[in-house]
Amino acid sequence: MNFKGVLLFPLLLISQPDTSFLNKLYRYYLTKSACYGSLKDLCYSVGHRLSGSPQAAKAVTWSLNTLKTYGADEVFLQEVKVPHWVRGKKEWCKVFTKNKKVKSFEVLALGGSISTNGILKAPAVRVKSFDELEKIGKVAIEGKIVFYDTRFDDGLISQGEAYGKAVSYRSKGASMAAKYGARAVLIRSMTSCRDNEPHTGQMRYDTSISNIKIPAFALSYSGADELSISFDNNEIDYIQLYSDCRQYPDTLSYNVIADLKGTTHPDKIILIGGHLDSWDVGHGAHDDGAGIVQSMEIIRAFKQLGYKPKHTIRVVCFMNEENGLRGANRYAEETKNKGWKHVAAMESDAGGFTPRGFGIDTTSGLFKKIYAHRDLLEKYLIQYLHDEGGGADIGPLEKLGVPCIGFIPDGQRYFDLHHTRQDTFDKIHKRELELGGAAMAALVYLIDILTD
Amino acid sequence: MNFKGVLLFPLLLISQPDTSFLNKLYRYYLTKSACYGSLKDLCYSVGHRLSGSPQAAKAVTWSLNTLKTYGADEVFLQEVKVPHWVRGKKEWCKVFTKNKKVKSFEVLALGGSISTNGILKAPAVRVKSFDELEKIGKVAIEGKIVFYDTRFDDGLISQGEAYGKAVSYRSKGASMAAKYGARAVLIRSMTSCRDNEPHTGQMRYDTSISNIKIPAFALSYSGADELSISFDNNEIDYIQLYSDCRQYPDTLSYNVIADLKGTTHPDKIILIGGHLDSWDVGHGAHDDGAGIVQSMEIIRAFKQLGYKPKHTIRVVCFMNEENGLRGANRYAEETKNKGWKHVAAMESDAGGFTPRGFGIDTTSGLFKKIYAHRDLLEKYLIQYLHDEGGGADIGPLEKLGVPCIGFIPDGQRYFDLHHTRQDTFDKIHKRELELGGAAMAALVYLIDILTD
Repeated sequence: MNFKGVLLFPLLLISQPDTSFLNKLYRYYLTKSACYGSLKDLCYSVGHRLSGSPQAAKAVTWSLNTLKTYGADEVFLQEVKVPHWVRGKKEWCKVFTKNKKVKSFEVLALGGSISTNGILKAPAVRVKSFDELEKIGKVAIEGKIVFYDTRFDDGLISQGEAYGKAVSYRSKGASMAAKYGARAVLIRSMTSCRDNEPHTGQMRYDTSISNIKIPAFALSYSGADELSISFDNNEIDYIQLYSDCRQYPDTLSYNVIADLKGTTHPDKIILIGGHLDSWDVGHGAHDDGAGIVQSMEIIRAFKQLGYKPKHTIRVVCFMNEENGLRGANRYAEETKNKGWKHVAAMESDAGGFTPRGFGIDTTSGLFKKIYAHRDLLEKYLIQYLHDEGGGADIGPLEKLGVPCIGFIPDGQRYFDLHHTRQDTFDKIHKRELELGGAAMAALVYLIDILTD
Repeated sequence: MNFKGVLLFPLLLISQPDTSFLNKLYRYYLTKSACYGSLKDLCYSVGHRLSGSPQAAKAVTWSLNTLKTYGADEVFLQEVKVPHWVRGKKEWCKVFTKNKKVKSFEVLALGGSISTNGILKAPAVRVKSFDELEKIGKVAIEGKIVFYDTRFDDGLISQGEAYGKAVSYRSKGASMAAKYGARAVLIRSMTSCRDNEPHTGQMRYDTSISNIKIPAFALSYSGADELSISFDNNEIDYIQLYSDCRQYPDTLSYNVIADLKGTTHPDKIILIGGHLDSWDVGHGAHDDGAGIVQSMEIIRAFKQLGYKPKHTIRVVCFMNEENGLRGANRYAEETKNKGWKHVAAMESDAGGFTPRGFGIDTTSGLFKKIYAHRDLLEKYLIQYLHDEGGGADIGPLEKLGVPCIGFIPDGQRYFDLHHTRQDTFDKIHKRELELGGAAMAALVYLIDILTD
């Protein structure tokens, strides 16, 4: 297609990536994008925003308004009922030793946990695995606080893999221990970062394991190490735990959706999204404020650069990824109801770190189309393209056959901050955040021109 | 080579990478390596270490002793005379406005600059390029302080490329301005980081441009922005500058060299190195303490894992990269004199950040051999392999025909800290540093088994 029209109307006619457009796109992100400023605004004017909280409601209004100013053709809300769990005002852990000393430990109640209903005082037992828990059984566990001394595997290159291997202690540790009569559980934080920050996250009471609900807390890495030493030294008399968290009735909330209409195929959607909710500590800056501002920015970028996409670009700010995926399920349900057609769905929910590449569903042939341009993408820091999962919020779409894509930033720092008070705006590196946004926009551009 | 001997003596016979060894190597780096602890020791027990300083001498002893404890077969020093420039105790910049206000600016004298010889007071002129400097010429410049208001290009993906484009204002800005009778120069720091930290670095008095030496200072990014606004507003009456830096006679120093002898080809060397000296602010943690500990660690790693290399693995801690490259030149000279044969030379001098890949010289066929294993290396975060330069310290070896390799970590944060008071140990991320070391060791292992 090397004729004059290509030069005059490159955006309409080309079917090969235009490197001069990609260069312009990257320069835009590095010098003019609003990702960083917008995330600062979200972090400081809204703050953390757990589903059902007043801040989550504020975040809905914030993203709705911001997407309007970015020039979306249509912005709308999608109703969704979300869980409403509130941490309460106090939570603490005190270890009383046999020689009458008291040690205080930083803790965070796990999301969804019941409260201790006043001060909970009990002797403690340590196990290093579910196998050990089951082996020592009711005799050793009944009436006690169980400490799961199970470590995140520092020796794995992928922190995500280490997380996947450890997270079942957070999600079902309480029910497993309750089965043997435990009164509460303490877990190690899901991290290899040796600081004193506990990491919260969702836990579930699994009635297929036990009908009894007991409170669950996370200790920090260093706190868990200290407690572990206390067990080694057999010096613990008893532990006191306190929390006043509470589950309220489900609350009405929203997914926030914005469309930039396609010129050739307005009925075919390229979805890009992240989750608007966060845990109730820190700012939710990397998890997932970053993914939200990166997703929203694509509309501003395409508008400002005058790029008119062939397909409809849809930004979805999903509600309730952290503790329920209700927004994700609602969106997938509506996709079925309304017959929405998705060319692809992309998610950014692994932090605003320097980009490495994408995981791309291989089922539809989309992976092959993009992979053919691997050499071109390398200089844009998109150096890893593999058949991998998309992400939690687009998971329900994947089940409907939508080709899903997960943005993969560098993963070494993410689990240092994940679900902690430290996931704040000052941990965001401007260029890394913007380069992530640029990588996502570059891939959307590629999909737009390579797909009919 | 799928016969029994491979399983019995894999380290001697294999000519293909052993992924189980690579897995062991990465697990070693992530759980047992001394890189992080060793760098902490270098930063806190030695600190910054400019060539010729007492700290540089201390760093020589430190690395010599550390390499001995790591189990090197031989550790030796290579004498080299290095420049000895001392910053002195005070340096400041005050801008006096026409309406009698005084603004103080953070400055660092550039390395190699003469002092102001007492307070230097002069009116100021701003230029945005060497072209503008030459255009306005002697009439506009004579007797004045020149402010080079030349920005680092934020819009480039590669910070190294932006640095390359801007750095001539630091290196020859003083001589260029002296040619037109300027009394001193102020430059913008070589960074896109919008903070108040000035970045020092080497400048040279280029007698082919001018025989007159004038003092040179770096302003911070935000300071330069503020000064630029003062010029926009035409509010500057005059500027006062002060520095008491001084050049002393050359000093005797050393490259520190350690060998792990090869079992099959003890006369053939695979070199791995970084530079031991640093600028005289901060800790020189990323530049280049990281490269030093990563290079040294390879001996400890191979010893502890029981890997006996076919070729001699040589670690070189080069002296005087920052302001002279004397150590690099000395090593190359000795290579000629002693007829040392190098299979390859690898350098780490781009910070202890998350690894991305390597730049590999294509002349000898080494690139092709490694590139053939690209898919294997990907999961070890070695995802970018290209024909690119090695590094400053191995440059003189490259001229002798040695295949050179530069370790490429992610480059987005490096120039935030480069040559500043902020390049301190707390900016080091343990896993990222160790993964860089592991990538270097993995590549040395690959070269060792793929090369005769």
